[in-house]
Amino acid sequence: MTTLTGSNFIAGEQSQLGTTTFTSVNPKTKQPGTVQFHNATTEEIHRVLAAAVDAYQQTRLYSAASLAYFLDTAASEIFALGDELLQTADMETGLGIPRLTGERGRTTGQLQAFAKLLREGSYVEAIIDTALPERQPAPRPDIRRMRFPIGPVGVFSASNFPFAFAVAGGDTASAWAAGNPVIVKAHPGHPATSELFAVAINRAIAATGFPAGWFSLLQGATVEVGQLLVQHPYLQAVGFTGSLRGGRALFDTAAQRQHPIPVYAEMGSVNPIVIMPQAVTARAESLAEGLANSATLGSGQFCTNPGIVFMIDSDETQNFIISYRDKMAARPNGVLLNEHIESGLEHAVAATQARESIHTLTGGFVVDGDSFAYANTVMKTTAADFIADAALQNEHFGPVTLFVVAASPDELTLALQSLHGNLTATVHAESSEADAAMPIFDLLREKAGRLLWNGFPTGVEVVYSQMHGGPYPATTAPATTSVGITAIQRFMRPVAFQNMPDALLPDALKNANPLGIWRTVNEAYTKDPIS
Amino acid sequence: MTTLTGSNFIAGEQSQLGTTTFTSVNPKTKQPGTVQFHNATTEEIHRVLAAAVDAYQQTRLYSAASLAYFLDTAASEIFALGDELLQTADMETGLGIPRLTGERGRTTGQLQAFAKLLREGSYVEAIIDTALPERQPAPRPDIRRMRFPIGPVGVFSASNFPFAFAVAGGDTASAWAAGNPVIVKAHPGHPATSELFAVAINRAIAATGFPAGWFSLLQGATVEVGQLLVQHPYLQAVGFTGSLRGGRALFDTAAQRQHPIPVYAEMGSVNPIVIMPQAVTARAESLAEGLANSATLGSGQFCTNPGIVFMIDSDETQNFIISYRDKMAARPNGVLLNEHIESGLEHAVAATQARESIHTLTGGFVVDGDSFAYANTVMKTTAADFIADAALQNEHFGPVTLFVVAASPDELTLALQSLHGNLTATVHAESSEADAAMPIFDLLREKAGRLLWNGFPTGVEVVYSQMHGGPYPATTAPATTSVGITAIQRFMRPVAFQNMPDALLPDALKNANPLGIWRTVNEAYTKDPIS
Repeated sequence: MTTLTGSNFIAGEQSQLGTTTFTSVNPKTKQPGTVQFHNATTEEIHRVLAAAVDAYQQTRLYSAASLAYFLDTAASEIFALGDELLQTADMETGLGIPRLTGERGRTTGQLQAFAKLLREGSYVEAIIDTALPERQPAPRPDIRRMRFPIGPVGVFSASNFPFAFAVAGGDTASAWAAGNPVIVKAHPGHPATSELFAVAINRAIAATGFPAGWFSLLQGATVEVGQLLVQHPYLQAVGFTGSLRGGRALFDTAAQRQHPIPVYAEMGSVNPIVIMPQAVTARAESLAEGLANSATLGSGQFCTNPGIVFMIDSDETQNFIISYRDKMAARPNGVLLNEHIESGLEHAVAATQARESIHTLTGGFVVDGDSFAYANTVMKTTAADFIADAALQNEHFGPVTLFVVAASPDELTLALQSLHGNLTATVHAESSEADAAMPIFDLLREKAGRLLWNGFPTGVEVVYSQMHGGPYPATTAPATTSVGITAIQRFMRPVAFQNMPDALLPDALKNANPLGIWRTVNEAYTKDPIS
Repeated sequence: MTTLTGSNFIAGEQSQLGTTTFTSVNPKTKQPGTVQFHNATTEEIHRVLAAAVDAYQQTRLYSAASLAYFLDTAASEIFALGDELLQTADMETGLGIPRLTGERGRTTGQLQAFAKLLREGSYVEAIIDTALPERQPAPRPDIRRMRFPIGPVGVFSASNFPFAFAVAGGDTASAWAAGNPVIVKAHPGHPATSELFAVAINRAIAATGFPAGWFSLLQGATVEVGQLLVQHPYLQAVGFTGSLRGGRALFDTAAQRQHPIPVYAEMGSVNPIVIMPQAVTARAESLAEGLANSATLGSGQFCTNPGIVFMIDSDETQNFIISYRDKMAARPNGVLLNEHIESGLEHAVAATQARESIHTLTGGFVVDGDSFAYANTVMKTTAADFIADAALQNEHFGPVTLFVVAASPDELTLALQSLHGNLTATVHAESSEADAAMPIFDLLREKAGRLLWNGFPTGVEVVYSQMHGGPYPATTAPATTSVGITAIQRFMRPVAFQNMPDALLPDALKNANPLGIWRTVNEAYTKDPIS
């Protein structure tokens, strides 16, 4: 067993300068853990950044192969933590061993996927336009560009993915893959899990000979720790997964710096689902079952949880809603991650219920007992009310579904037009009603980063084509994704070289293409050398 | 001749609601023009955005071929303005007919280059991962993504490129190419030139049948017009070229919106040049001549003007500086764009001269006379003083060169490490001193978007590989470029489609690849259809 210390990890060194501490709480028993974790101090944060800048002077020059080797080693070391990691995380999050086992595989898989990307090599996006010495009135110079890392990146862990969006999650993996040192602000809901990750990562650093400042872990249950990190002049970018309030606060802080930096904040969404009339007719039962599965998965604590369902009024629609309510009421209540989530959900649902137009069909209350829990909840309103009241678009981070019933297809369209930005949007339709469904699908394209057809939005594949992002307030950077391979682009910056002698160019840009990568040469995509 | 009206152009309609007006001023004579231009009003700005949103509902669905047709037509209509355009711009900017003729070619060339990109088609960055129905524990869905437009874009014209960074310049061309309506805030220095462009663009809109709201032109000599545009909730992104103060003000406004939007602001830089010892020895004369050419080109009014030159102290270095001073003193003074530039330059140089460490070798004063003009100016300081005083990095927007002389190679390195972000950085070195020059070049990679070897930074090629950007304060978005083909990426957003039937997918994502474009399919780059 690893002996947990409650320390911050500053470039491999344990540090406990802070005099204030906190513990995690087992959400299944509401019992606090025994380890006291120390809130990071201003001095510790500065030491972390100084070490990261030092490390960057080395890692910015590392080959893609070296970076890939580190990522693979980190994946191995995380796996080598064994059952202790799963048990610790379950104690801190209540997510259960099967889910956590799957999430561990996804997390190590992400690291390995970026290692594979690095070995393939074309992620540097080499673009070359060779000289035209005879051009009139002036010769055209030789210009070649590729992507490089940017410097220390701050990553804020999410509460709901203690592995995959946390210490060595997608943000960290993509920032590392780009060649950047990472400073993680651990989520206070699972500090022990985070410390285990820090131990594994530092083993990988030792095994690969990477500089110690390549990784640091800050513990903190206060807003100040995160603010100080984002304000630090050495930090170059921020990755964040969490609430709208938290993400926006960091975005505002970063924008107010003397030298502003980008904040890639994924702040959740209501993930609208539209169920077209013939789909209800054709498959009400499987739709209700699928929707209930998606809405209660992980106790509804997913950024992609389907929070709002749009339908056109009819007897079948009303029967569907009743059937869905019955399913939700009959399902056991899941455990919520922590007291903060429970309390936030209680107040968010109560605020929605306080709107005159809302009818609660089931749930709407905290479940008393040994665990943090909230009743599976179904509410209903009309499209007219939804259009008139932007507050009905607020996220409920838990097993809560709001039906929005439109009086007509036109009213449905108006309601969808009023939607704010979301991570996902879904249409359920029969092929026979594609003519009616396609304009709706097309409208939703302006509202979300991922569009689903006859599916459910929970479950985000880690693939090249993934787009886990979307217009504000889903994220602060709608053109980027925090899941999938192209997430690396957030943490790189192109630099062009003009008339550089071949011998002095980076390998990716040399005439001979010694890395054998795909490049754009004089507007053609090729692996050929330049003769 | 076109009859100029001094109007705003709101979706093809001329509008003069504003009661306050301004004129342009001929910088060669300081005489005001005869046309009164009307500052846009809040009501006009709202009408512009409403028209742009309407237009977007159509243009977001336009094919790449349609968009390309518009860009080519706009280029033709701009060219068809003939000599009137050149003469009007020369009267408003004093840049001279030869320069303006060249800039017109660059401007129409940019529009045509984006048309070519659209016809080639792979700019949508199609990425496809096909389904794995047999995968355990759950099937992998089919996910396909591509880039789409984002909505109305606001573009702020620059003073110093009345064609290429103005009404139909690079920002506008790239935003249009992506499928977005554009609202241009004309620069108050050349409103008549801007109106001529509006006339040409509206002819192109009429000829191609594009919706009227695809383009609008706002005139304004006040800060308020720009602020109101950026605050408008319908606006989705901003392109800007101009001063640090102006760009930062728009960035702050956009960040403070309820729904923040990106501001792609290119705010200029000092474009450091390092001259290594053997280069001075080998080619002092050609270096001084080349530097003087670059520093006085366009009267020094380029974002890429080489403002600061770093050298290591020696007799040769001191001789070089004297020789350069003599060349600058002997060259005629160019005309500045307007009173605002002249006054700004006067105060910026005076502020630098007020620092104790600065020695002025020539110039440092406004040239009295019929034209706006400032004496070619050379100043000198030490690397130690440069390191100690961040104010010495302020830009002088005109024919001004500051030499920073280091006592040693180590001090040179320290001075370069203290540099803020820049658009470009340059090293002049002989091949015999590459070992000493490469670490410097490598250090500068963190400081700029484009690195030059034995060249001068003025002259920015419009090619695929161009990177006209750089760390703050050069820009507010260091990973993007405002010149060159990849500028289009600023105004697009990827959207993923999950499990969409092939018939309902956009053409770029269909199995058969009917557009015949390059795509990433299951991690391989190919034009092949999916079987």
